[in-house]
Amino acid sequence: MNLLKSDDTKVFALGGLGEVGKNMYCIMHEDEIIITDAGMLMPEDELMGVDYVIPDFSFLKQNERKIKGLFITHGHEDHIGGIPFLLQMVNIPVIYAPNHAVGLIRKKLEDRNIQYKNLIIYDEKTVVRFKKITVEFFRTTHSIPDSHGICITTPNGIIVTTGDFKFDLTPIGPMANLHKMAEIGSRGVTLLLSDSTNALSEGISKSESKVDDALSEIFRRENGRIIIATFASNIYRLKHIVDNCKRNNRKIATFGRSMENNIEISINGGYIKHRDVFVTPEQANHMDPSKVCLLCTGSQGEPLAALSRIAEGNHKQIKLQPDDVVVFSSSAIPGNAASISKIINKLYLKGVKVYTNTSLNDIHASGHGSEEELKLMLRLINPKYFMPFHGEYRMLKKHADIGVMCGIPKENTFVLMNGEVLSIYKGKIKREGFVQADDIYVDGNRIGDVSNAVIRDRKIMANDGIIVVIANIDTKNNKLLNKVNITTRGFVLVNENEKLLNDLEKVSKKAINSKLSTPINYADIKSEIINSLSNYTYKKTGRKPIILPVIMDIRR
Amino acid sequence: MNLLKSDDTKVFALGGLGEVGKNMYCIMHEDEIIITDAGMLMPEDELMGVDYVIPDFSFLKQNERKIKGLFITHGHEDHIGGIPFLLQMVNIPVIYAPNHAVGLIRKKLEDRNIQYKNLIIYDEKTVVRFKKITVEFFRTTHSIPDSHGICITTPNGIIVTTGDFKFDLTPIGPMANLHKMAEIGSRGVTLLLSDSTNALSEGISKSESKVDDALSEIFRRENGRIIIATFASNIYRLKHIVDNCKRNNRKIATFGRSMENNIEISINGGYIKHRDVFVTPEQANHMDPSKVCLLCTGSQGEPLAALSRIAEGNHKQIKLQPDDVVVFSSSAIPGNAASISKIINKLYLKGVKVYTNTSLNDIHASGHGSEEELKLMLRLINPKYFMPFHGEYRMLKKHADIGVMCGIPKENTFVLMNGEVLSIYKGKIKREGFVQADDIYVDGNRIGDVSNAVIRDRKIMANDGIIVVIANIDTKNNKLLNKVNITTRGFVLVNENEKLLNDLEKVSKKAINSKLSTPINYADIKSEIINSLSNYTYKKTGRKPIILPVIMDIRR
Repeated sequence: MNLLKSDDTKVFALGGLGEVGKNMYCIMHEDEIIITDAGMLMPEDELMGVDYVIPDFSFLKQNERKIKGLFITHGHEDHIGGIPFLLQMVNIPVIYAPNHAVGLIRKKLEDRNIQYKNLIIYDEKTVVRFKKITVEFFRTTHSIPDSHGICITTPNGIIVTTGDFKFDLTPIGPMANLHKMAEIGSRGVTLLLSDSTNALSEGISKSESKVDDALSEIFRRENGRIIIATFASNIYRLKHIVDNCKRNNRKIATFGRSMENNIEISINGGYIKHRDVFVTPEQANHMDPSKVCLLCTGSQGEPLAALSRIAEGNHKQIKLQPDDVVVFSSSAIPGNAASISKIINKLYLKGVKVYTNTSLNDIHASGHGSEEELKLMLRLINPKYFMPFHGEYRMLKKHADIGVMCGIPKENTFVLMNGEVLSIYKGKIKREGFVQADDIYVDGNRIGDVSNAVIRDRKIMANDGIIVVIANIDTKNNKLLNKVNITTRGFVLVNENEKLLNDLEKVSKKAINSKLSTPINYADIKSEIINSLSNYTYKKTGRKPIILPVIMDIRR
Repeated sequence: MNLLKSDDTKVFALGGLGEVGKNMYCIMHEDEIIITDAGMLMPEDELMGVDYVIPDFSFLKQNERKIKGLFITHGHEDHIGGIPFLLQMVNIPVIYAPNHAVGLIRKKLEDRNIQYKNLIIYDEKTVVRFKKITVEFFRTTHSIPDSHGICITTPNGIIVTTGDFKFDLTPIGPMANLHKMAEIGSRGVTLLLSDSTNALSEGISKSESKVDDALSEIFRRENGRIIIATFASNIYRLKHIVDNCKRNNRKIATFGRSMENNIEISINGGYIKHRDVFVTPEQANHMDPSKVCLLCTGSQGEPLAALSRIAEGNHKQIKLQPDDVVVFSSSAIPGNAASISKIINKLYLKGVKVYTNTSLNDIHASGHGSEEELKLMLRLINPKYFMPFHGEYRMLKKHADIGVMCGIPKENTFVLMNGEVLSIYKGKIKREGFVQADDIYVDGNRIGDVSNAVIRDRKIMANDGIIVVIANIDTKNNKLLNKVNITTRGFVLVNENEKLLNDLEKVSKKAINSKLSTPINYADIKSEIINSLSNYTYKKTGRKPIILPVIMDIRR
């Protein structure tokens, strides 16, 4: 990136392009940097053992003094999940977030014992002015309360970022502020960044009110215990379930830590009423099944979540009963279909009735707008330039095509990669190099100490295990001492493969003896052990475990 | 199972119930056992490193003398993939299979150097008579040529097993033999076993002819190189692609071993004509793109298959060009959606056009019948008892409900588990215990030496790696010698975590020294190392790797 030119405005993503997750976008003008969102990404299975992926904060660390503030659009993990890690590494003078997100961020920081004073609630009336940049907000509709778009006025024009949105004209919460979007649009917007998650879906997304109707119908129809699995962060859905229980004289017990947290924060924030509807799991277990609703995590088939343990029959507090009704008020995130299917099979095996979201059961609606809603946003904001964000590459590309359908010249659409910089100067815009924007892995409580090399080793061990070969060598007399110790994990059943293990020892001994020299060359011996054992093992078992030779020097 | 009662007829599955895969069903009357199919199951990701799951052959081994023959319904892997393993473990006097399946089985046995003489081709006219049991066949339609249902007449009535089927009234190959099904039905059938794969789909499945039309349209419309990924075993699809290429003056190069094998076997069997259409990849690379079609494996996003390597840009022979068109003539098997999506994103990134199967593009049809087709089979065969097979539990259950809709009393439907035995005697049927029917894992070239314990170790190492702790102890003087060697794999980046590794050594030393005793208690020392290192590691990193202590006895 050319940092010499000083009076242009730069826009780039540290995360969120080519992926659904770890959203983080930066707008920089002279010595002012505005960040919107700081999310995390749930890793794919092939990132073995990695718990989260977060954006690369190197650029921000290097330009720490310029950072004016972080602005959060809404409280989903892919927009706030990176905050604890960011705060540990970079000084952020202030974080602005809407009310509900502030509750979630506060809880998140408490859980990790992070002290942070400058967390400020914004609403639609808030205007934040820096030296050259001004920030305003407009309400959108999404599957979590208080979702907002952000309007950033720079010396090179207005930049609008939508956050996540749909246009639900019969929402459960407040309406999106169409009029403010229209007003901003009529000021003349230079660049729009808009949510591409559902760009591949045609038409218009289902209203949350339809889901309301379908769930109400289930509450009217069913007399057994109702067990509902849904996204803990979908507060409108939870609100509706709570309201339904109130109306139908059912009490709710919650399961799963994120469910409990979200309910607590939503009651405190006033998004959910009727605290009296909630009971403990013990209380629920002693009530008539027709008076009970269990609200739990695990709608994506996560093996450790409440629903999975209930289906397996090893949940401490809940045993399934034949008249139970299980409702998946959710849709499958790609990659989770097989785990969900496995749970549904187990539920059927226990004889319970299962509702999933199908064309007949409208028990879930997406929080992201489909093609026609994306067009409406483009028409309202009416930008000169358009940069689709928040999506995999094919979603971004389709969204750019949708932009063209709405009259934006093709050359004014920008499908970028993370780190790629747009430079806006006097109404012109161009691509201008890259800032560093790698994937950073968080495993356990440590950031960035699991690299691709570590993951490669994990993958090999996951498939074929490891063979540890330990040899003691008397380097004075240049002699192999005693037995060579062969220990394996994840390779074969040890008890039933004594002969194979003995053979591995023989092969190792031969390898070592063939390479004994004065002075001893450890690297040589190790590579000989690895080569001969790899070949032997592959021939005998068809497997390629990690061979880990350890040579100990024992002087007599 | 009560083996004392001698004149009933027993029916049970060794695989195929509660799963889509490893189909194997047995019918036993007195000293005669008839086996239908011997399939394998592609394991889920959580069976780390396991290549195939096959049925448990213990019952067959124990009753080897009674086995009269194995009858194959069609040549898909979930029906023939277990044959090489079965033949290595159990004496099977004869295998009957339809023509195309015989080609595939022969190739499979050749590849593994298995000699087997008694592989016999059957067709609809074949009748195989044993002492008390008679076996006949009827043609069905499926996504592979020569699929058949089997009609088995026993002293306790007729048992019909459908194999895999759909009712395609405008098929690419020959029509299913509705008349023979009707004729068998009118004889009076005691028990029907029927394919449940698509029991959850309403209506009737798409005809393969629709796919023909949609693919022809793509061939007419596109002028770039056409790259088609599809299931290598779907010979009708391949036939159609070959015919289209012939018509449109395109030459075909094939990629992927299973694609090459299937094409070869299908040309030899007469299922595919126009051998002159095929060229080598080198030849294709020197031709005008509008004259070329590349046919490849990898439609499920398999990382090592041809399509994946082409999309990654690291295929030896094929480099993508901007005018290329990629066609996924396939649907996603649950669990593969994420890998497929990743490949599509990569293809978009390279700027090529991608066709997938959607409501607008009919470029794939399932080979299994939907609800209305299942009803038609039930009506034609008109059995007294019904046992849904070939499906996950919820598919079996839905299929049983469909049976009830077609007039079978609920108590006459049997949703069973693998190994569960049905006993038929004088027109009555009941459940009667279990035979052994576990999942047997094949990893590399060895059967059954990877157990759940081995897989558990692999899972831990996949997530958090392994720490090997090696200590030399002078047991004469009861003293720890030298340094304790700490070696890790898949745990942390070693170079950047020296301090952590030093601390692990200190903790290990302390643990060992605290447990030195005379005589030395190895188990005690090891468990102390495991405990203290596990705790320390979890506190410092949040990870729980395998701790593998090795204590060596070095007498000075």
